[in-house]
Amino acid sequence: MNRSLPKWEFVEGNVGTPLGFRAAATAAGIKRANDSLDLALIFSDSPSTTAAGVFTTNRVAAAPVLLSRQNLVKSRGRCRAIVVNSGNANACTGRAGMQMAEDTARAAAELLGIGPTQVLVASTGVIGVPLNANLVLKQLPGLKQKLSKENAGKVANAIMTTDTFPKTSVMRSEVKGKAVHIAGIAKGAGMIHPHMATMLSFITTDASMGERMLHNLLLGAAGDSFNRVTVDGDTSTNDTALVLSSGLSEIAVIPGNDSRAWFAEGLTLVCQSLARMIARDGEGASKLVTVEVVGARTPFDADRVARAVANSPLVKTALAGSDPNWGRIICAAGYSGARFDPNKIDVSINNMPICRKGVDAGFDEAAAHHELDGKKILLQIDLHAGRAGARMWTCDFTRDYIDINASYRS
Amino acid sequence: MNRSLPKWEFVEGNVGTPLGFRAAATAAGIKRANDSLDLALIFSDSPSTTAAGVFTTNRVAAAPVLLSRQNLVKSRGRCRAIVVNSGNANACTGRAGMQMAEDTARAAAELLGIGPTQVLVASTGVIGVPLNANLVLKQLPGLKQKLSKENAGKVANAIMTTDTFPKTSVMRSEVKGKAVHIAGIAKGAGMIHPHMATMLSFITTDASMGERMLHNLLLGAAGDSFNRVTVDGDTSTNDTALVLSSGLSEIAVIPGNDSRAWFAEGLTLVCQSLARMIARDGEGASKLVTVEVVGARTPFDADRVARAVANSPLVKTALAGSDPNWGRIICAAGYSGARFDPNKIDVSINNMPICRKGVDAGFDEAAAHHELDGKKILLQIDLHAGRAGARMWTCDFTRDYIDINASYRS
Repeated sequence: MNRSLPKWEFVEGNVGTPLGFRAAATAAGIKRANDSLDLALIFSDSPSTTAAGVFTTNRVAAAPVLLSRQNLVKSRGRCRAIVVNSGNANACTGRAGMQMAEDTARAAAELLGIGPTQVLVASTGVIGVPLNANLVLKQLPGLKQKLSKENAGKVANAIMTTDTFPKTSVMRSEVKGKAVHIAGIAKGAGMIHPHMATMLSFITTDASMGERMLHNLLLGAAGDSFNRVTVDGDTSTNDTALVLSSGLSEIAVIPGNDSRAWFAEGLTLVCQSLARMIARDGEGASKLVTVEVVGARTPFDADRVARAVANSPLVKTALAGSDPNWGRIICAAGYSGARFDPNKIDVSINNMPICRKGVDAGFDEAAAHHELDGKKILLQIDLHAGRAGARMWTCDFTRDYIDINASYRS
Repeated sequence: MNRSLPKWEFVEGNVGTPLGFRAAATAAGIKRANDSLDLALIFSDSPSTTAAGVFTTNRVAAAPVLLSRQNLVKSRGRCRAIVVNSGNANACTGRAGMQMAEDTARAAAELLGIGPTQVLVASTGVIGVPLNANLVLKQLPGLKQKLSKENAGKVANAIMTTDTFPKTSVMRSEVKGKAVHIAGIAKGAGMIHPHMATMLSFITTDASMGERMLHNLLLGAAGDSFNRVTVDGDTSTNDTALVLSSGLSEIAVIPGNDSRAWFAEGLTLVCQSLARMIARDGEGASKLVTVEVVGARTPFDADRVARAVANSPLVKTALAGSDPNWGRIICAAGYSGARFDPNKIDVSINNMPICRKGVDAGFDEAAAHHELDGKKILLQIDLHAGRAGARMWTCDFTRDYIDINASYRS
């Protein structure tokens, strides 16, 4: 990264912080607890807003994912509004589910005076249960009324399902005396609690850029953040990350100059900060675990090892028990498909070597146990097979995960 | 299968049942409980014995796996003895671990009057802890002394780690008035309990065949049995299945005639019976679950869907809670990578439809819950994308799995 680029700093705020954005949330009765916030609207006042999204790769994609993908294409990335609900994923709901998503977008567009393809929709919650369109439609006029910078702070709460805390990350930078903000919220990859679906993230910024640039930057940032989180290895039907750019800061991000690297850094930092919160808040999780692989032959090999270790139930249960069980770690590396010499692999926990050249490093068990008792753990793996690296964020696997996910839906 | 082939039937017995085999087990003090059986010897009296093996695909393979692979090649499949211990996997033990395995094979060969490459070794248990060669070496003379058909029954116990019951399956067939037996034992895929390593299986038969035929038949049988079991998706450093054929029944299995199909059926039935016992005895498991995929575009697609569903922690926790959560099942199918139309998929539990054409089948929740409360569950998935099918055996994911695997080693 060029050292002369303007710096980014974390600040207080919400998705209403960047210029041009207002938002609101309400309790629409979609969640069982009737007073729980479960519906929100995010809106950009600027007609020149650009938008981009990344979505689940699951072949069984929910109706709102299908519609938002379509609308980004049909509007050529000129979307200005997001309607999001929690409590029902509108997934596996057939033709009626698609109709419901379309009705929602059309109604919101009419109220806001924009085209129906300029509205993006997202849902999270129970799968396979019809989502009553009226619950959403009758709230839209009130939500439009309440749109404000103050009310935008509640949106992070309205998208929660099994999350134990709202997730917001806002960064600020100053260019030519003008402030630029990137604000993100997310809901967690606790994964599908009594089918509560996965990760949603919504990002607003007042930097100015074309929709293609925005899309490319979002792809890169998501690849280094949301795509590097795993709680249980399942990929949901509803995963969605959307970004709207109002352009009102008058600071432009332009291909081929430093502005691209500057904005990419800020967007990636926001997304990574949200990704870490998601991992820390995994269902039943007690620890945030960073798996760091170095010395891989190729970036793909590094990624495979990091993912295999981060997804291994045996590694994750050992972490829950604070067991410095390096055998399970190199076992997972071994079946990842990556090429390396098992007699060269090193493993450390928080920089304390526990495995050297594939055998026990002769470490102090009590000290290693103590390190693993912390809330933040760094697992380091050096394959000594090359120069590529990769990182994953995950959490430990506790009895609470089973309890949360084994409970009967009704 | 040709209807005129001789039938196979399950009978009582052990690895000493086929003609020419004797075995014995002892407590060598490798397991912490000093009176636990943890070392065994299986021997074929016939000089014309053939042998074959299949091993873990994990790049981090344990010393006994490396040595047994070598010995099968060096002896050209003429191995006659198996030395197996539980309590220590001799994995991630470096050069000393390899030396220990070689010393064991050499000592056993001398005692038995065969070549050192005619001995196969296998280990299961703790990873990364040196295995004291003397514990094994000093027991070998006594084991040789005790070799008998009666003592062979104890070998299934001596290979257990976190298994809750010994696993034995014996089949008998009659050809031209002569009896032929295939006898198998296995230890479980509870996976690496405080690093207790994975699946071992040892099979003896008195059918007669060349080592190449034996190898091909074992590959096929393992592919339809052991390779179709998953408990937690982890692949251990020690997975091993070995088969010895004494030939003493005088019934030959010959390329290009019906004898091949006949023996393949028997061997597959033995391996499948052991595989189902392994799934049922998964760590903390309360249910044996068969995942059956039909209507896939290709066998590879069928396999991918069956594996994704059988490995999904969300599906497995739902099964533990007897939750007819078809959303999680088709979600796992969706991220498997298989190609199918989400609007055509059907899911049934024990033949009760719960999802039709990708949406709720309008089933009776209480009845479905009741089906899932059983000890044996059949999950059926029809992709309606083609004619290929695949099956996997798995278990539910309970709190006990976490408790078993989170406990600190020391």
